[in-house]
Amino acid sequence: MRIGFIGLGNMGGPMARNLLKAGHELTVFDLSETAVAAAVKAGASKANSVAELASGDRELIITMLPAAQHVKGVYLGDNGLLASVAAGVHLIDSSTIDPMSAREVAKAAAEHGNPMLDAPVSGGTGGAEAGTLTFMVGGEPDEFEFARPVLETMGKNIVHCGPAGNGQVAKVANNMLLGISMIGAAEAMSLGVSLGMDPKVLAGVINTSSGRCWSTDTYNPYPGVIDGVPSSRGYTGGFGTDLMIKDLGLATEAAKSVRQPVVMGALAQQLYQGMSFEGHGDLDFSAIIKRYSSDQE
Amino acid sequence: MRIGFIGLGNMGGPMARNLLKAGHELTVFDLSETAVAAAVKAGASKANSVAELASGDRELIITMLPAAQHVKGVYLGDNGLLASVAAGVHLIDSSTIDPMSAREVAKAAAEHGNPMLDAPVSGGTGGAEAGTLTFMVGGEPDEFEFARPVLETMGKNIVHCGPAGNGQVAKVANNMLLGISMIGAAEAMSLGVSLGMDPKVLAGVINTSSGRCWSTDTYNPYPGVIDGVPSSRGYTGGFGTDLMIKDLGLATEAAKSVRQPVVMGALAQQLYQGMSFEGHGDLDFSAIIKRYSSDQE
Amino acid sequence: MRIGFIGLGNMGGPMARNLLKAGHELTVFDLSETAVAAAVKAGASKANSVAELASGDRELIITMLPAAQHVKGVYLGDNGLLASVAAGVHLIDSSTIDPMSAREVAKAAAEHGNPMLDAPVSGGTGGAEAGTLTFMVGGEPDEFEFARPVLETMGKNIVHCGPAGNGQVAKVANNMLLGISMIGAAEAMSLGVSLGMDPKVLAGVINTSSGRCWSTDTYNPYPGVIDGVPSSRGYTGGFGTDLMIKDLGLATEAAKSVRQPVVMGALAQQLYQGMSFEGHGDLDFSAIIKRYSSDQE
Amino acid sequence: MRIGFIGLGNMGGPMARNLLKAGHELTVFDLSETAVAAAVKAGASKANSVAELASGDRELIITMLPAAQHVKGVYLGDNGLLASVAAGVHLIDSSTIDPMSAREVAKAAAEHGNPMLDAPVSGGTGGAEAGTLTFMVGGEPDEFEFARPVLETMGKNIVHCGPAGNGQVAKVANNMLLGISMIGAAEAMSLGVSLGMDPKVLAGVINTSSGRCWSTDTYNPYPGVIDGVPSSRGYTGGFGTDLMIKDLGLATEAAKSVRQPVVMGALAQQLYQGMSFEGHGDLDFSAIIKRYSSDQE
Repeated sequence: MRIGFIGLGNMGGPMARNLLKAGHELTVFDLSETAVAAAVKAGASKANSVAELASGDRELIITMLPAAQHVKGVYLGDNGLLASVAAGVHLIDSSTIDPMSAREVAKAAAEHGNPMLDAPVSGGTGGAEAGTLTFMVGGEPDEFEFARPVLETMGKNIVHCGPAGNGQVAKVANNMLLGISMIGAAEAMSLGVSLGMDPKVLAGVINTSSGRCWSTDTYNPYPGVIDGVPSSRGYTGGFGTDLMIKDLGLATEAAKSVRQPVVMGALAQQLYQGMSFEGHGDLDFSAIIKRYSSDQE
Repeated sequence: MRIGFIGLGNMGGPMARNLLKAGHELTVFDLSETAVAAAVKAGASKANSVAELASGDRELIITMLPAAQHVKGVYLGDNGLLASVAAGVHLIDSSTIDPMSAREVAKAAAEHGNPMLDAPVSGGTGGAEAGTLTFMVGGEPDEFEFARPVLETMGKNIVHCGPAGNGQVAKVANNMLLGISMIGAAEAMSLGVSLGMDPKVLAGVINTSSGRCWSTDTYNPYPGVIDGVPSSRGYTGGFGTDLMIKDLGLATEAAKSVRQPVVMGALAQQLYQGMSFEGHGDLDFSAIIKRYSSDQE
Repeated sequence: MRIGFIGLGNMGGPMARNLLKAGHELTVFDLSETAVAAAVKAGASKANSVAELASGDRELIITMLPAAQHVKGVYLGDNGLLASVAAGVHLIDSSTIDPMSAREVAKAAAEHGNPMLDAPVSGGTGGAEAGTLTFMVGGEPDEFEFARPVLETMGKNIVHCGPAGNGQVAKVANNMLLGISMIGAAEAMSLGVSLGMDPKVLAGVINTSSGRCWSTDTYNPYPGVIDGVPSSRGYTGGFGTDLMIKDLGLATEAAKSVRQPVVMGALAQQLYQGMSFEGHGDLDFSAIIKRYSSDQE
Repeated sequence: MRIGFIGLGNMGGPMARNLLKAGHELTVFDLSETAVAAAVKAGASKANSVAELASGDRELIITMLPAAQHVKGVYLGDNGLLASVAAGVHLIDSSTIDPMSAREVAKAAAEHGNPMLDAPVSGGTGGAEAGTLTFMVGGEPDEFEFARPVLETMGKNIVHCGPAGNGQVAKVANNMLLGISMIGAAEAMSLGVSLGMDPKVLAGVINTSSGRCWSTDTYNPYPGVIDGVPSSRGYTGGFGTDLMIKDLGLATEAAKSVRQPVVMGALAQQLYQGMSFEGHGDLDFSAIIKRYSSDQE
């Protein structure tokens, strides 16, 4: 397929490479010349502007941008995507942004004659490189079926979450719960160890009991309990605390927009913010356990 | 085996019946004559006091009591168990109490020549009746091996958690995390639905993602997502909110004793307390979602 | 002075009347014809658009609008204030908005040659009518001195808080603390009464001790402790919970922008949101005590 | 008056000296020989045990002990105060303990024929030395009037809070609110400064507005705002964080006993616990601002 790709950052770069590997004909745009050069070396063509990319002969354009302001700028700006793209070209935004903005952009696209999906991902840079990302997709069922084979070249779990914006809703809800349960796991593991338990034995009990969660059985924050996760390599790599703060910010903002209380979600946001405030925003978010467990410091 | 059993409440009653079914010779004591009569009808003998039960010819005595004050009273009181029991009789306390009290009683028992285990359970009255409880056991390895066959007649998951008191530690840590992640699940499900998602689709996404936890995949608080759990029958049955408040109270007290912060744990305790304060302490703890989701009211 | 006034809502209406009473020559604009008619009846002239008001011969234009989006629309829009006003006309925005937006608008005004102050108020509709508002003012010292006599016809406490945006900063910081201490007061009063104290005696002790705050000595949330405050008239009138939620939303957003944790502030926001969620957003914010004190329900 | 005094710690020592200065005939007991020697040097007689002190010819016995377990031990123990004292001797306990324990001891005293007051203090060691403590007193009105002149030699603000235990209730409610509003003040001051305000200007605005509280106008946590308070001398002296944690622990425990939620109170307890966990439990509790304000570190 002739695909345009905008946004070649830590996630977008490897995603674009997986599209190339799958045989797609890719044209890319990014402000970073280095990122563009890397993609060109891997087989992509380059466009010199969003408008140039959008006005070319593409069947599908995928964007992967840092925040809602960039998404709105790229899609809705004066020289933006919708101002240049032909009606009928398919659009997928894989950025993680608030559901309201996603719906606003999807509506503008639909009015312009472009079917659009929001398809934020989870799985981190490791998943982007391995092509094992999860895509949470919002949009029309037909459009989802159209996009699925393309998304499957970049991910292994492609989930339809409902109409436009629902991909973002699913991601924001999932990641809010993740942010909460990781702190819960950190508190429970630290409390048990402080009271005299061996961390591996405690994790074993929890993982066969009602406290079981991804944060205990797959990504345990206590060092030495699980091999190969950030807690066992000094909390490097993984999912940065500042990214978790961004996602929790999206969750509390989205909650505000629908007048929905999220007490634990808001507390989690502030606790990670406190960790970032003390200079640890670049560590994996499971390093929140350092606030509870002196053995970790 | 000749077993004494003290405490025939909602949990202790069915546990005693399972011991009888397994062929043990049971002598029971409880303040409730009705409860004693039911056990006698099921084949038990009765004792008229703790002292009478303790001074008889038992190999093992099991206790199942509401709170630490009762455990201390029964074991350490003037006419209590340790004052009457012969050295060498094995002791198991299956009450859920704070680890410090459990260790205090176990130490007194050891000094009196009685090996003792703390063995709190999870699994609710349903698990007690079906004999499928989880036992989290603290005490010496030899003693754990001695007790395992007896415990297996009442439960299916018997876990050794380390020395005396560690059964209580494991339970308190697990249940604190459960209390936290249930509220997290309630907030995430409510937020997603408020933002336009179908609850079953949302649960499906979360359960294959990093937000996955027992509270979403086994006991989802949103009605209609999972059949047969309290949220699908008006939050009746299950694990009462006031019992969760008791367990979170044990967790925060235990944390205080070791100067360990548990920010989310303490917030969870207060949120359930608020629910109980408004008159819903008898509902299953997953009913906390009513504070977040107007569809549930 | 020849003054333009935009925004004749619950606060702006009485503020405009006080300007008229003080002898100023007032031209007004509002989307509500009723509000405009009332101001005209009180002696104002009317303009038919922001542009008409801005292009007239005014020395000073004051705006009082609901939220940042309206302020940006009125000042920065295509037919907005800055597009029409002559350089040199003084500008005051008394809306309560986030400091970042206030600074953005003030910067645009300065570039256009218009000195501008942000001057949010506290004191409620009662203070607006009585001319006893507090103005928290951000902007240049000279400009503050220019505006002071005008502001003094609408308020009695006019405070210079520093450069542009600092009026908003002061308001957001003050109101966040107010929102926190009101819940603290509600919890402390409820706890003391639950434990057996007379509420007036308890308030008396606190008000001469280290727990003393405006929420206990001037606006006590417990009914019957202070006459004439919302708690003594069913929580009607006063400062609506939904307005407090708006201000706490500004506080947590502003905190996010500077990566500053505000744990208690975020929790307060969610607790008021929970109260609004249950249908009480129109009650005075001191009604949060209903969540703690069954006597109040 | 012939007074017995038990407990010569940081608070009790200077309190006893003020009683001596006022001309009372004092007999003292403490486990610390150094403390006893100092009191004897200041004019007191010494007793060699609680029983000896209690059985002597005293009109009034005052106790000042660290925690409820000590109070119960001294009053209710086998060789304790009530076992030895003559009926009719007046009793005052100035320890800070939970209201339930205070009432239990007062009831035992009454049954033994000894009128008793609970009279916890606030004002710190400085107030104890200067004789300017606040006494919050629970007990019978007649007994309060009897004790008032004695308490006035140690304090300047003597408040009757109602029946037995209410002195403790007042203290626990006041200090919980203090603990909350100090964190609120820390967050509000830090947020304002992060957003560009001068701390003194911000404190000035808050102190004439609705955010005003003892923690901003008398004991501001931001350094340099108020002279002579702990924040202006590196958070030394003052009211130690670990003591605040103790008082918040009493508050949350008392709340649990009456099934009263205290959401902010519990969060405050955990935030101070986190500060103590990181090794700062000996600093004044206003040092909590270090978690919010990088200028303070």
